[in-house]
Amino acid sequence: MPHITLNSAEPGIRGLLRYRPETARPLGELAEVLLRGPNTLTRGERELIAAYVSGLNDCRYCASSHSASAAAQLPGGMALVEQVRADAGDAPVPAKLKALLAIAAAVRHSGLDVTAGLVADARAAGATDLEIHDTVLIAAIFCMMNRYVDGLATLAPDDPVFYAAGAQHLIKEGYQPPSEEPAVRG
Amino acid sequence: MPHITLNSAEPGIRGLLRYRPETARPLGELAEVLLRGPNTLTRGERELIAAYVSGLNDCRYCASSHSASAAAQLPGGMALVEQVRADAGDAPVPAKLKALLAIAAAVRHSGLDVTAGLVADARAAGATDLEIHDTVLIAAIFCMMNRYVDGLATLAPDDPVFYAAGAQHLIKEGYQPPSEEPAVRG
Repeated sequence: MPHITLNSAEPGIRGLLRYRPETARPLGELAEVLLRGPNTLTRGERELIAAYVSGLNDCRYCASSHSASAAAQLPGGMALVEQVRADAGDAPVPAKLKALLAIAAAVRHSGLDVTAGLVADARAAGATDLEIHDTVLIAAIFCMMNRYVDGLATLAPDDPVFYAAGAQHLIKEGYQPPSEEPAVRG
Repeated sequence: MPHITLNSAEPGIRGLLRYRPETARPLGELAEVLLRGPNTLTRGERELIAAYVSGLNDCRYCASSHSASAAAQLPGGMALVEQVRADAGDAPVPAKLKALLAIAAAVRHSGLDVTAGLVADARAAGATDLEIHDTVLIAAIFCMMNRYVDGLATLAPDDPVFYAAGAQHLIKEGYQPPSEEPAVRG
């Protein structure tokens, strides 16, 4: 049961976005720009970074959601996502993405853990400054989202079908939160 | 030296906001709504939560900035901010704020560390659901900001005058990032 009384039965981040539309708007815009906006990293790669960090943070809702979104947008599908989440260093992903995942894992622990060596490795594998920037910010944002979702003890459905359907909805509609229904906050 | 080549010499978050205006906009709006928007927690109290979490995360830039902003907006000034950052449990703040700071410290470590007991303590001390929500989200957002600022190795000035001037600017102008200058990104 969530720690606070929400104004809907929606699980995970959805219920929180519904509860506080004033913060939902910039949170939705942030996710939309970073995970779906124009970028030299594919949408699938960016969702994979989100899923990987959320898994390291043990956030079941976010890890499941973004694993489903990554799987739906990466040629390797869920098998690849699961390999990355189990052992990113050994997963069959290109060297650049592997180096960016290593940066994301460092950010997950602390920004101070991102060493010049990790950044040099990413650059040597072909990462641009903007890709390094966006990787750090995506990892940081999921350190926020995971804490937000779990810090209020929101619900995380067990059924993978829930997350797969969410991924399809996301691919069509994007991250902007629905605005048509007025919020009624208790 | 920052890990990437920024398009300004601005330290901390400022240089990052200048570098990536597409993400600067929602980040600024998020900070504005949460730290300065209408709320039953004062602006000083919300800045104190930001300073406290940033200090726990060893983020010198954010801890110094938000300590200065909290000090400028709290009757206890910098002496109170320093007491809270040194030992929040023993600092002379009202019981409700103390309980919210305990929630913020839990969020800082992991969302999963926010127990029903911590939430019950806050509620017993008079905290509303929305105050609990906003405390969790403010703490979570600074877990993001701290990782963003340090993960890219941005500079943090030593001089307290820099942060005190920033606090005065913030109090007057708010968190919306400047939009008048076009970004030139390398």
